[in-house]
Amino acid sequence: MTKHIYIYSPSSAVGDRAVIKRGVARLKALGHEVELDEAVFARHMRFAGDDATRLAAIHRAAASGADVALITRGGYGLTRILPGIRYKAVAKAIERGTRFVGLSDFTAFQNAVLAKTGAVTWSGPALGEDFGVEGEPDDIMQACFEDLVSGQGEGAGWQLPVSERRDRLLQVKEATLWGGNLAVLSSLVGSPWIPDIRNGILFLEDVHEHPYRVERMLTQLLYAGILGRQKAILLGHFTNYKPYPHDRGFKLQTVVDWLRLQVKCPVFTRLPFGHVATKVALPVGAPVHLAVEGRDAFVLWGHRH
Amino acid sequence: MTKHIYIYSPSSAVGDRAVIKRGVARLKALGHEVELDEAVFARHMRFAGDDATRLAAIHRAAASGADVALITRGGYGLTRILPGIRYKAVAKAIERGTRFVGLSDFTAFQNAVLAKTGAVTWSGPALGEDFGVEGEPDDIMQACFEDLVSGQGEGAGWQLPVSERRDRLLQVKEATLWGGNLAVLSSLVGSPWIPDIRNGILFLEDVHEHPYRVERMLTQLLYAGILGRQKAILLGHFTNYKPYPHDRGFKLQTVVDWLRLQVKCPVFTRLPFGHVATKVALPVGAPVHLAVEGRDAFVLWGHRH
Repeated sequence: MTKHIYIYSPSSAVGDRAVIKRGVARLKALGHEVELDEAVFARHMRFAGDDATRLAAIHRAAASGADVALITRGGYGLTRILPGIRYKAVAKAIERGTRFVGLSDFTAFQNAVLAKTGAVTWSGPALGEDFGVEGEPDDIMQACFEDLVSGQGEGAGWQLPVSERRDRLLQVKEATLWGGNLAVLSSLVGSPWIPDIRNGILFLEDVHEHPYRVERMLTQLLYAGILGRQKAILLGHFTNYKPYPHDRGFKLQTVVDWLRLQVKCPVFTRLPFGHVATKVALPVGAPVHLAVEGRDAFVLWGHRH
Repeated sequence: MTKHIYIYSPSSAVGDRAVIKRGVARLKALGHEVELDEAVFARHMRFAGDDATRLAAIHRAAASGADVALITRGGYGLTRILPGIRYKAVAKAIERGTRFVGLSDFTAFQNAVLAKTGAVTWSGPALGEDFGVEGEPDDIMQACFEDLVSGQGEGAGWQLPVSERRDRLLQVKEATLWGGNLAVLSSLVGSPWIPDIRNGILFLEDVHEHPYRVERMLTQLLYAGILGRQKAILLGHFTNYKPYPHDRGFKLQTVVDWLRLQVKCPVFTRLPFGHVATKVALPVGAPVHLAVEGRDAFVLWGHRH
């Protein structure tokens, strides 16, 4: 079914227009109507236009009446404009059926919207990196996005590492799914834009962050009491960092092991999300069920949204 | 006058013992008695021993009765052991006259001590990077350290860039000096270890952090209300980051200009502090006066400590 997809740039400037054009062509080939925001290629230094331009783009996306508002790319730029976003307008757009989709820097927007209004946004692909690739976009990413666009999605499943298998069914019911990029989320701690989620399922991913930095960011969530209020923590992919010879065995798994000693709730890894091609779409702020049995993990949001 | 200097390793492991030996030899040549903690060369992965080892080293430093407790190096490791530090024992050592000196990762210790006890510690050199260099250590760093060791220091002065000159004397009186490494400090926001300083003079430095990351960390301090409670902000050196072609004119000065639009208090730069050879020693948690006239800036703590 043809859906209306609105493309806008709230964060870093688009570097290569060809990537965006390829992404648009792919969405059109899937049968969708694609609308480009007037400032989609705007540039002000490293940003997709100055702060006012990017705020206006967000508010045009909210006013577009589109089924999906999809970012061109992440980068950096949302954190500094959080005070200028008209959250009620965004929440009304969501109520009318617009799904806001993105990741990475977009985490700031998603969690601010959740903190201010309780409205659900989607962690999922960005147009450029995911649909604008040369060659075929990842098929799981595409299938999850199509489920999201059509409103048919009911959950996401993945396989856990052997060490995390559960012989008996583990269930976490009626928990609020939230999270995103760890660096962006942890930078919101102490601000009015960090959601106060109790009974939550927190998912996290990051890129270009050495494990010691991942650990330091996790200490911030831990010391602020955030990790202690969750029912489960789901770690997506932490990619593209450079180990040092000095690490001497300190690696991401060390941090995961450390994290498990700090919290009472279960910590599961390999959630297919992050700066990787194969990514699911996840409703930030939605009530979900987590079910784990054997090596199979599922996050289910049923017909709620 | 001979002083007793206790050397310990609360953060990352010492990589090259020769650096430490050179530093110790220099302090001895200055006439000091130097005592090495038993775990000064300990290693557990990237850390200077496991958490218990590093905590014990801190507590031995506090029990040493030394005039100065000086770190071998920064790196990473203090944030994760903050809950295990016996703050009263540290504050008692400070009361008895031990000056705790260091920088970078040490920022976590300093601010936690300030938050928990109000006791003053010193942002200054590390043994390895500052005294262990091949060739002669920086003479301003050495002079400031000697002032600190002898208790003779009364302040620090530096020259502002022309654009920051004040034709009329600007004074900030009876403010609390605090701060340190921006990445470490901002990671404490929301935790019990971030000092609640009103009427403060906040100084910040960092290394290996791109200006967009510096800005994002500053937004955290801004949004948490911390910047708004300061009487002045002093920026030290932000060094050794890699610009991207994509920045297109976004640089550290852009962030400084942005910061000045966010806060009412004055922001001065070029404070001789950070991951640079020429660094002053600064009392974290002490009442100070800031005076600026023309291009001359002074932070004065008089005979208080």
